Amino acid sequence: MPDIQEGKAAIDQQIRHLQDTLYVINGKWKLPILVAVHQGNTRFRDIQRSTGGITTKALSKELKELEQNKLVLRKVYDTSPPRVECTTTSYCDTLSNMIAEMIDWGKNHRNKIKED
Amino acid sequence: MPDIQEGKAAIDQQIRHLQDTLYVINGKWKLPILVAVHQGNTRFRDIQRSTGGITTKALSKELKELEQNKLVLRKVYDTSPPRVECTTTSYCDTLSNMIAEMIDWGKNHRNKIKED
Repeated sequence: MPDIQEGKAAIDQQIRHLQDTLYVINGKWKLPILVAVHQGNTRFRDIQRSTGGITTKALSKELKELEQNKLVLRKVYDTSPPRVECTTTSYCDTLSNMIAEMIDWGKNHRNKIKED
Repeated sequence: MPDIQEGKAAIDQQIRHLQDTLYVINGKWKLPILVAVHQGNTRFRDIQRSTGGITTKALSKELKELEQNKLVLRKVYDTSPPRVECTTTSYCDTLSNMIAEMIDWGKNHRNKIKED
């Protein structure tokens, strides 16, 4: 477990930071969506297909929340019909280490659960 | 964003690992509970107070799921009434880096959102 500072106030503070992060990335879809967009899926249908199984309504909602949190940029082109392209922001790169850790951990955890 | 392998099959695999991890730690409470238990809150009421706001029913459910995933150990002492103590497992330590990253990220994110 992380080497967090001792003391009730410090612990509460750290738990608050942790809950802030969870608030942003929570749910089954946000991180998979970010990975898909980052991998070059800019169009709605491509993102939907890449993440697998997310409904249109849910994907719309998730993309809006990711935009509010400055992780995704939605650019609307003035074509007919209007074309929308999603890209990840440079700020989104700050999630890299966390996502890499989560991918590693998930891989190991599957083996851990299998082994017993 | 993480330097994940290219290619559709590799990306799908990484997303699966990521979703495995999310499945285990998902929700508002699991990680805060783990931090609280790790910090020495072994009793149900202490864990509940430390995490702040979780209901008795939800905490019971979360602890059971954490136990199934080998992150928490529940030890029942044969006293009257029976005393239950929760501790984190050594396997739980494998989450350290991820949790540390999440605490850092949450701290920075609050500033990021404030600054604009």
